[in-house]
Amino acid sequence: MPPARGRPRDPRADDRIAGAALELLREQGPAGVHIDAVATRAGVARTTVYRRYRDRGALLAATLEQLVEAPFPARELPLEGKMRWLLEQALDLVEEKLGRGAVAAVLSDSDPALGAALRAHLVRQLEALQGEIDADIEAGRVRADTDGEALADLALGACLAQLLRHGRPRKGWANNIVDLLVHGTDPAPG
Amino acid sequence: MPPARGRPRDPRADDRIAGAALELLREQGPAGVHIDAVATRAGVARTTVYRRYRDRGALLAATLEQLVEAPFPARELPLEGKMRWLLEQALDLVEEKLGRGAVAAVLSDSDPALGAALRAHLVRQLEALQGEIDADIEAGRVRADTDGEALADLALGACLAQLLRHGRPRKGWANNIVDLLVHGTDPAPG
Repeated sequence: MPPARGRPRDPRADDRIAGAALELLREQGPAGVHIDAVATRAGVARTTVYRRYRDRGALLAATLEQLVEAPFPARELPLEGKMRWLLEQALDLVEEKLGRGAVAAVLSDSDPALGAALRAHLVRQLEALQGEIDADIEAGRVRADTDGEALADLALGACLAQLLRHGRPRKGWANNIVDLLVHGTDPAPG
Repeated sequence: MPPARGRPRDPRADDRIAGAALELLREQGPAGVHIDAVATRAGVARTTVYRRYRDRGALLAATLEQLVEAPFPARELPLEGKMRWLLEQALDLVEEKLGRGAVAAVLSDSDPALGAALRAHLVRQLEALQGEIDADIEAGRVRADTDGEALADLALGACLAQLLRHGRPRKGWANNIVDLLVHGTDPAPG
Protein backbone atom coordinates (compact mmCIF):
# COMPACT_ATOMS: atom_id res chain seq x y z
CA MET A 1 0.00 0.00 0.00
CA PRO A 2 1.63 3.31 -1.06
CA PRO A 3 1.96 6.08 1.51
CA ALA A 4 -0.80 8.67 1.40
CA ARG A 5 1.67 11.56 1.08
CA GLY A 6 5.18 11.94 -0.40
CA ARG A 7 8.39 11.44 1.64
CA PRO A 8 10.19 8.04 1.57
CA ARG A 9 8.95 5.84 4.36
CA ASP A 10 11.04 4.09 6.93
CA PRO A 11 10.55 0.31 6.70
CA ARG A 12 11.53 -0.07 10.36
CA ALA A 13 8.56 2.12 11.30
CA ASP A 14 6.31 -0.12 9.16
CA ASP A 15 7.51 -3.16 11.07
CA ARG A 16 7.18 -1.44 14.42
CA ILE A 17 3.62 -0.33 13.64
CA ALA A 18 2.47 -3.75 12.44
CA GLY A 19 4.22 -5.42 15.38
CA ALA A 20 2.61 -3.03 17.85
CA ALA A 21 -0.84 -3.60 16.32
CA LEU A 22 -0.44 -7.38 16.55
CA GLU A 23 0.72 -7.16 20.17
CA LEU A 24 -2.28 -5.01 21.09
CA LEU A 25 -4.65 -7.36 19.28
CA ARG A 26 -3.38 -10.33 21.29
CA GLU A 27 -3.11 -8.55 24.61
CA GLN A 28 -6.26 -6.44 24.62
CA GLY A 29 -8.42 -7.83 21.84
CA PRO A 30 -9.65 -5.81 18.88
CA ALA A 31 -10.88 -2.86 20.96
CA GLY A 32 -7.26 -2.21 21.96
CA VAL A 33 -6.17 -1.72 18.35
CA HIS A 34 -6.71 1.92 17.43
CA ILE A 35 -4.35 4.38 15.86
CA ASP A 36 -3.43 6.30 19.03
CA ALA A 37 -2.63 3.14 20.96
CA VAL A 38 -0.63 1.67 18.08
CA ALA A 39 1.39 4.87 17.65
CA THR A 40 2.17 4.96 21.38
CA ARG A 41 3.14 1.28 21.51
CA ALA A 42 5.27 1.59 18.35
CA GLY A 43 6.94 4.75 19.63
CA VAL A 44 6.03 6.78 16.55
CA ALA A 45 3.91 9.89 16.01
CA ARG A 46 0.22 9.51 15.17
CA THR A 47 0.96 11.25 11.87
CA THR A 48 3.49 8.52 11.07
CA VAL A 49 0.68 5.98 11.32
CA TYR A 50 -1.84 8.11 9.40
CA ARG A 51 0.71 8.76 6.65
CA ARG A 52 0.72 5.01 6.00
CA TYR A 53 -2.87 3.95 6.76
CA ARG A 54 -5.85 6.12 6.04
CA ASP A 55 -7.92 4.56 8.82
CA ARG A 56 -8.10 1.71 11.33
CA GLY A 57 -9.38 -0.70 8.67
CA ALA A 58 -6.33 -0.15 6.48
CA LEU A 59 -4.08 -0.55 9.53
CA LEU A 60 -5.78 -3.84 10.46
CA ALA A 61 -5.51 -5.13 6.90
CA ALA A 62 -1.77 -4.33 6.81
CA THR A 63 -1.34 -5.89 10.25
CA LEU A 64 -2.87 -9.22 9.26
CA GLU A 65 -0.79 -9.21 6.06
CA GLN A 66 2.24 -9.39 8.35
CA LEU A 67 1.18 -12.71 9.86
CA VAL A 68 3.83 -15.22 8.92
CA GLU A 69 2.41 -18.49 7.69
CA ALA A 70 4.10 -21.82 8.29
CA PRO A 71 5.22 -23.48 5.05
CA PHE A 72 3.01 -26.32 3.84
CA PRO A 73 4.20 -29.76 4.95
CA ALA A 74 6.16 -31.96 2.57
CA ARG A 75 4.01 -33.33 -0.26
CA GLU A 76 4.87 -36.93 0.68
CA LEU A 77 3.69 -36.60 4.30
CA PRO A 78 0.87 -39.11 4.90
CA LEU A 79 -2.64 -37.66 4.81
CA GLU A 80 -3.02 -38.01 8.60
CA GLY A 81 0.02 -35.82 9.07
CA LYS A 82 -1.30 -33.22 6.67
CA MET A 83 -4.64 -33.06 8.46
CA ARG A 84 -2.87 -32.75 11.79
CA TRP A 85 -0.78 -29.90 10.39
CA LEU A 86 -3.95 -28.15 9.20
CA LEU A 87 -5.52 -28.41 12.67
CA GLU A 88 -2.34 -27.07 14.27
CA GLN A 89 -2.34 -24.08 11.94
CA ALA A 90 -5.99 -23.38 12.68
CA LEU A 91 -5.39 -23.51 16.43
CA ASP A 92 -2.30 -21.32 16.11
CA LEU A 93 -4.29 -18.75 14.12
CA VAL A 94 -7.03 -18.57 16.77
CA GLU A 95 -4.97 -18.88 19.94
CA GLU A 96 -1.69 -17.19 19.05
CA LYS A 97 -1.92 -15.06 15.94
CA LEU A 98 -5.32 -13.44 16.39
CA GLY A 99 -6.46 -14.30 19.89
CA ARG A 100 -9.95 -15.47 20.78
CA GLY A 101 -11.20 -11.95 21.39
CA ALA A 102 -10.61 -11.13 17.73
CA VAL A 103 -12.37 -14.28 16.57
CA ALA A 104 -15.31 -13.59 18.88
CA ALA A 105 -15.57 -9.99 17.62
CA VAL A 106 -15.69 -11.11 13.99
CA LEU A 107 -18.16 -13.88 14.76
CA SER A 108 -20.55 -11.52 16.55
CA ASP A 109 -19.90 -8.77 13.97
CA SER A 110 -18.92 -6.31 16.68
CA ASP A 111 -15.84 -5.14 14.73
CA PRO A 112 -16.64 -4.96 10.99
CA ALA A 113 -13.23 -3.49 10.08
CA LEU A 114 -11.48 -6.43 11.70
CA GLY A 115 -13.94 -8.79 10.00
CA ALA A 116 -13.07 -7.37 6.58
CA ALA A 117 -9.33 -7.60 7.27
CA LEU A 118 -9.58 -11.16 8.58
CA ARG A 119 -11.72 -12.32 5.66
CA ALA A 120 -9.26 -10.89 3.14
CA HIS A 121 -6.45 -12.68 4.99
CA LEU A 122 -8.33 -15.99 4.95
CA VAL A 123 -9.09 -15.70 1.23
CA ARG A 124 -5.35 -15.55 0.49
CA GLN A 125 -4.68 -18.49 2.81
CA LEU A 126 -7.41 -20.57 1.19
CA GLU A 127 -6.09 -19.95 -2.32
CA ALA A 128 -2.71 -21.29 -1.27
CA LEU A 129 -4.30 -24.29 0.47
CA GLN A 130 -6.44 -25.15 -2.56
CA GLY A 131 -3.27 -25.08 -4.71
CA GLU A 132 -1.69 -27.67 -2.41
CA ILE A 133 -4.82 -29.82 -2.43
CA ASP A 134 -5.11 -29.68 -6.22
CA ALA A 135 -1.51 -30.90 -6.53
CA ASP A 136 -2.29 -33.73 -4.08
CA ILE A 137 -5.43 -34.69 -6.00
CA GLU A 138 -3.47 -34.65 -9.26
CA ALA A 139 -0.90 -36.99 -7.70
CA GLY A 140 -3.60 -39.32 -6.34
CA ARG A 141 -2.75 -38.54 -2.72
CA VAL A 142 -6.09 -36.90 -1.96
CA ARG A 143 -9.60 -37.90 -3.05
CA ALA A 144 -10.79 -36.06 -6.18
CA ASP A 145 -13.30 -33.23 -5.60
CA THR A 146 -11.83 -32.46 -2.17
CA ASP A 147 -12.79 -28.85 -1.57
CA GLY A 148 -10.19 -26.70 0.15
CA GLU A 149 -12.68 -24.24 1.62
CA ALA A 150 -14.78 -27.01 3.13
CA LEU A 151 -11.66 -28.67 4.54
CA ALA A 152 -10.42 -25.39 5.99
CA ASP A 153 -13.84 -24.65 7.49
CA LEU A 154 -13.84 -28.07 9.14
CA ALA A 155 -10.32 -27.65 10.53
CA LEU A 156 -10.77 -24.08 11.76
CA GLY A 157 -14.22 -24.96 13.03
CA ALA A 158 -13.16 -28.09 14.91
CA CYS A 159 -10.73 -25.91 16.81
CA LEU A 160 -13.37 -23.33 17.65
CA ALA A 161 -15.76 -26.06 18.77
CA GLN A 162 -13.08 -27.49 21.07
CA LEU A 163 -12.50 -24.09 22.65
CA LEU A 164 -16.24 -23.56 22.96
CA ARG A 165 -16.85 -26.95 24.57
CA HIS A 166 -13.80 -27.21 26.81
CA GLY A 167 -12.25 -23.76 27.14
CA ARG A 168 -9.02 -25.18 25.76
CA PRO A 169 -8.12 -28.09 23.48
CA ARG A 170 -8.07 -31.35 25.42
CA LYS A 171 -4.97 -33.52 25.14
CA GLY A 172 -5.24 -35.68 22.03
CA TRP A 173 -8.25 -33.70 20.76
CA ALA A 174 -6.97 -33.83 17.18
CA ASN A 175 -6.85 -37.64 16.91
CA ASN A 176 -10.53 -38.34 16.31
CA ILE A 177 -10.89 -35.21 14.20
CA VAL A 178 -8.02 -36.31 11.94
CA ASP A 179 -9.56 -39.78 11.67
CA LEU A 180 -12.85 -38.30 10.42
CA LEU A 181 -11.16 -35.86 8.04
CA VAL A 182 -9.22 -38.73 6.48
CA HIS A 183 -11.76 -41.56 6.52
CA GLY A 184 -15.16 -39.89 6.79
CA THR A 185 -18.17 -41.73 8.20
CA ASP A 186 -19.12 -43.97 5.27
CA PRO A 187 -18.57 -47.62 6.23
CA ALA A 188 -18.24 -48.86 2.64
CA PRO A 189 -16.73 -46.12 0.49
CA GLY A 190 -15.68 -46.24 -3.13
CA MET B 1 -34.01 -28.07 40.72
CA PRO B 2 -36.19 -27.73 43.85
CA PRO B 3 -37.28 -24.24 44.92
CA ALA B 4 -35.03 -22.64 47.51
CA ARG B 5 -37.93 -21.99 49.91
CA GLY B 6 -41.29 -23.70 50.58
CA ARG B 7 -44.57 -22.79 48.78
CA PRO B 8 -45.71 -24.77 45.67
CA ARG B 9 -44.37 -23.19 42.52
CA ASP B 10 -46.40 -22.13 39.52
CA PRO B 11 -45.25 -23.99 36.41
CA ARG B 12 -46.52 -21.13 34.21
CA ALA B 13 -44.09 -18.81 35.96
CA ASP B 14 -41.27 -21.30 35.27
CA ASP B 15 -42.10 -21.24 31.57
CA ARG B 16 -42.44 -17.48 31.50
CA ILE B 17 -39.07 -17.04 33.21
CA ALA B 18 -37.23 -19.45 30.92
CA GLY B 19 -38.96 -17.97 27.87
CA ALA B 20 -38.04 -14.44 28.93
CA ALA B 21 -34.41 -15.43 29.52
CA LEU B 22 -34.17 -17.04 26.06
CA GLU B 23 -35.72 -13.98 24.41
CA LEU B 24 -33.25 -11.68 26.15
CA LEU B 25 -30.33 -13.93 25.21
CA ARG B 26 -31.28 -13.77 21.52
CA GLU B 27 -32.18 -10.09 21.45
CA GLN B 28 -29.47 -8.58 23.60
CA GLY B 29 -26.82 -11.25 23.96
CA PRO B 30 -25.67 -12.70 27.27
CA ALA B 31 -25.17 -9.31 28.96
CA GLY B 32 -28.94 -8.78 28.68
CA VAL B 33 -29.71 -11.88 30.73
CA HIS B 34 -29.71 -10.92 34.40
CA ILE B 35 -32.30 -11.56 37.04
CA ASP B 36 -33.85 -8.08 37.09
CA ALA B 37 -34.29 -7.98 33.33
CA VAL B 38 -35.69 -11.51 33.23
CA ALA B 39 -38.19 -10.77 36.02
CA THR B 40 -39.36 -7.61 34.22
CA ARG B 41 -39.69 -9.36 30.87
CA ALA B 42 -41.49 -12.32 32.42
CA GLY B 43 -43.82 -10.05 34.40
CA VAL B 44 -42.94 -11.65 37.75
CA ALA B 45 -41.35 -10.32 40.93
CA ARG B 46 -37.58 -10.59 41.39
CA THR B 47 -38.26 -12.80 44.42
CA THR B 48 -40.20 -15.19 42.16
CA VAL B 49 -37.03 -15.66 40.12
CA TYR B 50 -34.74 -15.89 43.16
CA ARG B 51 -37.06 -18.43 44.80
CA ARG B 52 -36.34 -20.74 41.84
CA TYR B 53 -32.74 -19.92 40.92
CA ARG B 54 -30.12 -19.04 43.45
CA ASP B 55 -28.11 -16.98 40.96
CA ARG B 56 -27.72 -16.08 37.30
CA GLY B 57 -25.75 -19.28 36.61
CA ALA B 58 -28.62 -21.47 37.83
CA LEU B 59 -31.06 -19.39 35.77
CA LEU B 60 -28.92 -19.80 32.64
CA ALA B 61 -28.61 -23.55 33.20
CA ALA B 62 -32.40 -23.90 33.56
CA THR B 63 -32.90 -21.69 30.50
CA LEU B 64 -30.72 -23.83 28.24
CA GLU B 65 -32.44 -26.97 29.57
CA GLN B 66 -35.62 -25.59 28.00
CA LEU B 67 -34.17 -25.61 24.49
CA VAL B 68 -36.24 -28.03 22.48
CA GLU B 69 -34.14 -30.35 20.37
CA ALA B 70 -35.30 -31.65 17.01
CA PRO B 71 -35.79 -35.44 17.01
CA PHE B 72 -33.00 -37.42 15.33
CA PRO B 73 -33.70 -38.23 11.69
CA ALA B 74 -35.01 -41.66 10.69
CA ARG B 75 -32.38 -44.38 11.08
CA GLU B 76 -32.69 -45.36 7.41
CA LEU B 77 -31.97 -41.84 6.09
CA PRO B 78 -28.82 -42.00 3.90
CA LEU B 79 -25.62 -40.82 5.55
CA GLU B 80 -25.58 -37.61 3.48
CA GLY B 81 -28.99 -36.71 4.86
CA LYS B 82 -27.88 -37.37 8.41
CA MET B 83 -24.82 -35.17 8.03
CA ARG B 84 -26.95 -32.43 6.51
CA TRP B 85 -29.33 -32.71 9.46
CA LEU B 86 -26.42 -32.39 11.87
CA LEU B 87 -25.18 -29.22 10.15
CA GLU B 88 -28.70 -27.75 10.21
CA GLN B 89 -28.97 -28.42 13.95
CA ALA B 90 -25.59 -26.81 14.57
CA LEU B 91 -26.55 -23.71 12.59
CA ASP B 92 -29.91 -23.51 14.33
CA LEU B 93 -28.19 -23.72 17.73
CA VAL B 94 -25.82 -20.87 16.90
CA GLU B 95 -28.11 -18.59 14.90
CA GLU B 96 -31.53 -19.16 16.48
CA LYS B 97 -31.34 -20.86 19.84
CA LEU B 98 -28.33 -19.13 21.38
CA GLY B 99 -27.42 -16.27 19.08
CA ARG B 100 -23.90 -15.44 17.97
CA GLY B 101 -23.34 -13.09 20.88
CA ALA B 102 -23.68 -15.99 23.29
CA VAL B 103 -21.28 -18.15 21.28
CA ALA B 104 -18.77 -15.30 21.07
CA ALA B 105 -19.00 -14.71 24.83
CA VAL B 106 -18.32 -18.37 25.61
CA LEU B 107 -15.49 -18.54 23.08
CA SER B 108 -13.76 -15.49 24.54
CA ASP B 109 -14.61 -16.56 28.10
CA SER B 110 -16.27 -13.24 28.85
CA ASP B 111 -19.29 -14.94 30.48
CA PRO B 112 -18.15 -17.98 32.51
CA ALA B 113 -21.65 -18.69 33.89
CA LEU B 114 -23.03 -18.93 30.36
CA GLY B 115 -20.04 -21.06 29.39
CA ALA B 116 -20.76 -23.54 32.17
CA ALA B 117 -24.47 -23.70 31.26
CA LEU B 118 -23.75 -24.15 27.54
CA ARG B 119 -21.15 -26.85 28.17
CA ALA B 120 -23.55 -28.82 30.37
CA HIS B 121 -26.19 -28.52 27.65
CA LEU B 122 -23.78 -29.75 24.97
CA VAL B 123 -22.70 -32.73 27.07
CA ARG B 124 -26.31 -33.94 27.18
CA GLN B 125 -26.69 -33.39 23.44
CA LEU B 126 -23.51 -35.29 22.70
CA GLU B 127 -24.54 -38.29 24.77
CA ALA B 128 -27.75 -38.57 22.76
CA LEU B 129 -25.84 -38.16 19.48
CA GLN B 130 -23.30 -40.83 20.40
CA GLY B 131 -26.17 -43.21 21.17
CA GLU B 132 -27.53 -42.70 17.63
CA ILE B 133 -24.09 -43.13 16.09
CA ASP B 134 -23.45 -46.32 18.05
CA ALA B 135 -26.73 -47.77 16.78
CA ASP B 136 -25.75 -46.81 13.22
CA ILE B 137 -22.30 -48.38 13.63
CA GLU B 138 -23.90 -51.55 15.02
CA ALA B 139 -26.18 -51.70 11.97
CA GLY B 140 -23.28 -51.13 9.56
CA ARG B 141 -24.60 -47.76 8.43
CA VAL B 142 -21.68 -45.76 9.84
CA ARG B 143 -17.97 -46.58 9.85
CA ALA B 144 -16.80 -48.26 13.06
CA ASP B 145 -14.88 -46.01 15.49
CA THR B 146 -16.79 -42.93 14.39
CA ASP B 147 -16.53 -40.57 17.33
CA GLY B 148 -19.62 -38.53 18.11
CA GLU B 149 -17.76 -35.70 19.81
CA ALA B 150 -15.39 -35.29 16.89
CA LEU B 151 -18.30 -35.36 14.44
CA ALA B 152 -20.23 -32.80 16.49
CA ASP B 153 -17.15 -30.56 16.76
CA LEU B 154 -16.73 -30.71 12.99
CA ALA B 155 -20.40 -29.91 12.33
CA LEU B 156 -20.70 -27.12 14.89
CA GLY B 157 -17.30 -25.81 13.87
CA ALA B 158 -17.99 -25.80 10.14
CA CYS B 159 -20.94 -23.55 10.86
CA LEU B 160 -18.87 -21.20 13.00
CA ALA B 161 -16.17 -21.06 10.32
CA GLN B 162 -18.81 -20.18 7.69
CA LEU B 163 -20.10 -17.34 9.84
CA LEU B 164 -16.56 -16.19 10.52
CA ARG B 165 -15.54 -16.24 6.87
CA HIS B 166 -18.72 -14.92 5.25
CA GLY B 167 -20.86 -13.32 7.94
CA ARG B 168 -23.67 -15.74 7.04
CA PRO B 169 -23.80 -19.23 5.52
CA ARG B 170 -23.49 -19.03 1.74
CA LYS B 171 -26.12 -20.79 -0.35
CA GLY B 172 -25.18 -24.45 -0.70
CA TRP B 173 -22.43 -24.14 1.94
CA ALA B 174 -23.31 -27.53 3.40
CA ASN B 175 -22.74 -29.54 0.20
CA ASN B 176 -18.95 -29.74 0.25
CA ILE B 177 -18.91 -30.09 4.04
CA VAL B 178 -21.31 -33.05 3.87
CA ASP B 179 -19.18 -34.61 1.14
CA LEU B 180 -16.08 -34.47 3.36
CA LEU B 181 -17.91 -35.70 6.46
CA VAL B 182 -19.17 -38.72 4.50
CA HIS B 183 -16.20 -39.56 2.28
CA GLY B 184 -13.18 -37.96 3.95
CA THR B 185 -10.06 -37.07 1.98
CA ASP B 186 -8.44 -40.48 1.55
CA PRO B 187 -8.45 -41.44 -2.16
CA ALA B 188 -8.21 -45.18 -1.54
CA PRO B 189 -9.97 -46.06 1.69
CA GLY B 190 -10.69 -49.45 3.15
